[in-house]
Amino acid sequence: MKNEKCKITKPESAAYRLSDLGETGLLARIEKHFKFQKDTRLLLGPGDDCAVLRHAPGKALVITTDEIVEGTHFLMRFSTPEDLAAKLLRVNLSDLAAMGPVRPVSCVAGAGLKSGLPLSFIIRFLKKLKSEALRFGITVAGGNLAGARENHFYLTMWGEAEPSKLLTRYGAGPGDLIFNIGPLGSASAGLELLKAANKKNIKKFKGLVKGFWRPEPMLAAGRLLGEKKIASAMIDNSDGLARSAAIIAELSKCQTTLNLPEEAVSKELKRYAAVKGRDWRAYALKGGEDFGLVFTVPARKAAILKKLLPAAVCVGRVEKGRGSVIENYGSEISAFSHF
Amino acid sequence: MKNEKCKITKPESAAYRLSDLGETGLLARIEKHFKFQKDTRLLLGPGDDCAVLRHAPGKALVITTDEIVEGTHFLMRFSTPEDLAAKLLRVNLSDLAAMGPVRPVSCVAGAGLKSGLPLSFIIRFLKKLKSEALRFGITVAGGNLAGARENHFYLTMWGEAEPSKLLTRYGAGPGDLIFNIGPLGSASAGLELLKAANKKNIKKFKGLVKGFWRPEPMLAAGRLLGEKKIASAMIDNSDGLARSAAIIAELSKCQTTLNLPEEAVSKELKRYAAVKGRDWRAYALKGGEDFGLVFTVPARKAAILKKLLPAAVCVGRVEKGRGSVIENYGSEISAFSHF
Repeated sequence: MKNEKCKITKPESAAYRLSDLGETGLLARIEKHFKFQKDTRLLLGPGDDCAVLRHAPGKALVITTDEIVEGTHFLMRFSTPEDLAAKLLRVNLSDLAAMGPVRPVSCVAGAGLKSGLPLSFIIRFLKKLKSEALRFGITVAGGNLAGARENHFYLTMWGEAEPSKLLTRYGAGPGDLIFNIGPLGSASAGLELLKAANKKNIKKFKGLVKGFWRPEPMLAAGRLLGEKKIASAMIDNSDGLARSAAIIAELSKCQTTLNLPEEAVSKELKRYAAVKGRDWRAYALKGGEDFGLVFTVPARKAAILKKLLPAAVCVGRVEKGRGSVIENYGSEISAFSHF
Repeated sequence: MKNEKCKITKPESAAYRLSDLGETGLLARIEKHFKFQKDTRLLLGPGDDCAVLRHAPGKALVITTDEIVEGTHFLMRFSTPEDLAAKLLRVNLSDLAAMGPVRPVSCVAGAGLKSGLPLSFIIRFLKKLKSEALRFGITVAGGNLAGARENHFYLTMWGEAEPSKLLTRYGAGPGDLIFNIGPLGSASAGLELLKAANKKNIKKFKGLVKGFWRPEPMLAAGRLLGEKKIASAMIDNSDGLARSAAIIAELSKCQTTLNLPEEAVSKELKRYAAVKGRDWRAYALKGGEDFGLVFTVPARKAAILKKLLPAAVCVGRVEKGRGSVIENYGSEISAFSHF
């Protein structure tokens, strides 16, 4: 790209390239530039797990889109078409789950494909996409194909919901407790295992590899938390617990303090971390792509929560202030970033 | 990718890679493998310009997705962020227009971006995406960002419609006439000019370059054709007139015969073709990305059509039989393919 085609209009912008800024900084700037204030149908625009649009009396359309890109999210040498299709569908379902009681309806898929890719790869990808869609009770309504020099796959998925029951990232307040439901650290450990390509270890820690390829969208938990009006804020844990908590802190204008108990992660992750000589907390806090739900609950509702969702684990608390703090962990946190 | 990861299940598949098969062949195979017969909400699945889903009594959601990929659809050296944003939005609107009377509502955008891309590029892209969205009366509800080694931008867009008024690619019959509304050949000539990078020629033929970067979605024409129940089948002309006619022939189970009159293309295209020493029909028939509407009309309604849409030009006829024929043109046709 020639520089003269990118005339800088704001002095501050000149200094930044995407690699300096990271995804967080970029998203913040995008939201600043990007408001559609006059559209009363748009109940929730850019900045949450999904967009929400009024579409019939008492009914909202909840929409999300997510992409997986070769070299960023996966390498072809350790990916089957079934892995890619299953993960793509599930990460989008996870976004819907993070909004609360959403009934997934359908999706459209798109792919940019290398010309050397065997047809059998695409057919296998589509068959798995279809069987996974049916498993979760949705359809694939259509799609698009384009040539590319790097394989990438995207999905836009939508569901229906009652707008009043939806949960956002904005509602946490001092006195709330922070919970996680779903694995922590498994996916990033699984990715490490796949990259290292040691067959024995991949077999030994197959639960972690499964955590990377087959995240289980927390639709039932999300629905319950919204229906019973227990959670005050919620986010799907796509970029690591530290980042999820920091986003809730920023958008809810409070401070989050994380303190991971021993039961927050699986024994398998602890065994793997021990083999690698690393603190298991590093995987749980910094590892991305776990796709559980991180949510806040007023302390007085904690007992009800434990009855309804016994698998949820308290991982911290919300306090007055700003920013996010991590107790009981020595290392500096640099959360998962896509750039 | 290792071959053992792509175990071939069907002998026929083994011979094919995407580059051999082309987009048409691939799409046909996808549709074969990809039906969701039990979902009564899915009024129209893969295979048309948009998917159509029932979403309220008498109301359908009309959804499309389209992508532009660096190296396939554009080169960074001749593309501004404004060009990319405007084109991306318009090609998706064009898909909605091809379904007939659709009211565009909103969209979500996604991008895979190189890490070296200046922040100003993204901000300019988003500003233009927003201003173009407002121009066409829609919002951008959300999106996704991913790192990539090749820039690509996608959009999923939806609108609302009365299902009974929608037009598909399936309804043409013998005795119908084939019409085109919108430019023919301009976009492919424009792309040629941009690639050649001769500033004088780019200025001289700026209408063709505009045809490539700023296709005008034919929303009003599409609406009229559906509301007045004039057209029997319709498609947006994204891959060249020859290919558009061939798709209608195949899906409507009839034969299309194209015969381009002099007034089918602009004087500017004719001048450009003369400079290049080529038949202007080659651009009109084979050139992709014009994004006008190609539609069929029963002969008895041709007079009404001419009154309602005087800019529509008759470019052929529908007959009994199969396949598509081109009269009045000597060269062999190889339609625009993304692979």
